[in-house]
Amino acid sequence: MRDDEEMGRITLAQVAQKAGVSISTVSKVLNGRQDVAPPTRIKVERLLETHAYRRTARSSREAPLIEIVFHELDSIWALELIRGVENVAKANQASVVLTESGTRHSPDPDWIEGVLQRRPIGVVLVFSALPQAVKQQLRARSIPFVIIDPAGDPDPDVPSVGSANWTGGLAATRHLIELGHRRIGIITGPEDMLCSLARLDGYRSAMSMAGLETAPELIRFGDFHVEGGYDRAMEMLSLPERPTAVFAGSDLQALGVLEAARVNGLRVPHDLSVVGYDDVQVARWSSPALTTVHQPLRQMAEEAAQMLLRLRTEEPSSTRLELATSLVVRKSTAPPRAD
Amino acid sequence: MRDDEEMGRITLAQVAQKAGVSISTVSKVLNGRQDVAPPTRIKVERLLETHAYRRTARSSREAPLIEIVFHELDSIWALELIRGVENVAKANQASVVLTESGTRHSPDPDWIEGVLQRRPIGVVLVFSALPQAVKQQLRARSIPFVIIDPAGDPDPDVPSVGSANWTGGLAATRHLIELGHRRIGIITGPEDMLCSLARLDGYRSAMSMAGLETAPELIRFGDFHVEGGYDRAMEMLSLPERPTAVFAGSDLQALGVLEAARVNGLRVPHDLSVVGYDDVQVARWSSPALTTVHQPLRQMAEEAAQMLLRLRTEEPSSTRLELATSLVVRKSTAPPRAD
Repeated sequence: MRDDEEMGRITLAQVAQKAGVSISTVSKVLNGRQDVAPPTRIKVERLLETHAYRRTARSSREAPLIEIVFHELDSIWALELIRGVENVAKANQASVVLTESGTRHSPDPDWIEGVLQRRPIGVVLVFSALPQAVKQQLRARSIPFVIIDPAGDPDPDVPSVGSANWTGGLAATRHLIELGHRRIGIITGPEDMLCSLARLDGYRSAMSMAGLETAPELIRFGDFHVEGGYDRAMEMLSLPERPTAVFAGSDLQALGVLEAARVNGLRVPHDLSVVGYDDVQVARWSSPALTTVHQPLRQMAEEAAQMLLRLRTEEPSSTRLELATSLVVRKSTAPPRAD
Repeated sequence: MRDDEEMGRITLAQVAQKAGVSISTVSKVLNGRQDVAPPTRIKVERLLETHAYRRTARSSREAPLIEIVFHELDSIWALELIRGVENVAKANQASVVLTESGTRHSPDPDWIEGVLQRRPIGVVLVFSALPQAVKQQLRARSIPFVIIDPAGDPDPDVPSVGSANWTGGLAATRHLIELGHRRIGIITGPEDMLCSLARLDGYRSAMSMAGLETAPELIRFGDFHVEGGYDRAMEMLSLPERPTAVFAGSDLQALGVLEAARVNGLRVPHDLSVVGYDDVQVARWSSPALTTVHQPLRQMAEEAAQMLLRLRTEEPSSTRLELATSLVVRKSTAPPRAD
């Protein structure tokens, strides 16, 4: 007896019988309709999931869709991630549906209704921690999903793509040490994001491996935006003994550090070296162009979309894919001044 | 007798009869199938268009879609335009389908096939000049479309949204004149784009109205990218008598001018004033933050999406909507040095 027979692929009528509801109620749940009492909906979803119900595939005459959902589209990451998904979609004659929805952690509840109507190949979610309810709703309807999580806070039971934050922090700091800097500041991201902590730990390890002390006043938490970088850099540059280099934790924070340097009459890299993180477009366009840690955002999105395509034929696994980061040396870093 | 009766809303059978083909052939054309000989396809499309055939509306149970098509997603404009369309879609419980396709002038031919299958509410095209064939294909299938054309090259028979380029060029130049600059350079866009010429004419008019001569060596054509701004600024800054201010024609070109200033040891705005154009995110993030001409990209996309929604109930018109531009003064401009 084969596995899927043992599991007992189930019909809607069987689900209805087990749940003690009508077939039309099961159908309503499947289609994401709101006129079903929540306890009934949850009971039906659990049965659908347990028995691995597979809904009829989208008609082959319809155009295939891949969905990508963001919390906020004005994230500097958004465009690179969209491009990655679009590349894979195009190669597979599919189109990309884009939604901005919800909070940093999960999409709005009404988003799910639209997804169920559109029946995409799958969904790429750019969220850190997906609530159990959302996962269950998608699983109950056999809609594959993958999380892109540049914040590095992987959910253990969901396929996800991230990148190597600790190694990135290490590489950025080592570069500054190799140039001869000893007094190196770090502005990492918010204290409640794992990627902030991983980058900071990479910095600490690089300092410690080089036999350098880390001064507490040179370690600051920012917000990953220009303002945070500016504010924290203004603080550091007013210290009695200011740093000769700053690892800025993100490219936007690095832009804030550049502005703080300008306001203080310091030239970058002559008077202050600055390293960013992400390698988004502005890193190349900044004056001077930023030395930064390349986070392969587009490739991460491509991998996520490829995972979805594979999930059409393969069983889902809880894969966590972590892509390598790499240092890109441009013009914002130089040896410290001799004086 | 009412107009639409006079026009004679036509059935597929009538189209088939007039074209001398089978109903199934007409249906294939409507669905964008490739297995119809081009002369037959064109004949059927013309009949559908002439008789204003309306295909059955998308089922109300299906999730409504608004499409946006770009030539290249890495345009600095893309994110703002996507956000505008997404705002309107969200307010109307619709989703956004995003496609990167084709050349600067039109999407790839196979894109149309997907659109016909997806049956969106309508299509926002970010292209300058749409070929007649594409327009006819969309019209024959009653798919409303609007062109967003920041390049300012409106197609007279298509609804389009743009912005006031000449006025923008005038405002940027006047601002520099009012600060006391006399020797003002301009780097406009490519010579074959109308928006480049409109911004340049705005510059010329402002100079002339102030009784200032325009020196030919201070007028350059760029590429709207950082590199063009850098190269042209390096040329201008090496002139025996260099400009004290540059209107850079786009924010990216302005970033190139900032880098050229840095390489030449010039401080902005102390030694050189710089004005951008577009007011994309990087204008705020640059060091110093750019004085620039705000082009309301998000609002332009919102207007385009609203036009599509109106086209569901109103007859299409050849509206050209031109939104106002406005000067945003930040930190990259100052009076010229007294010496």
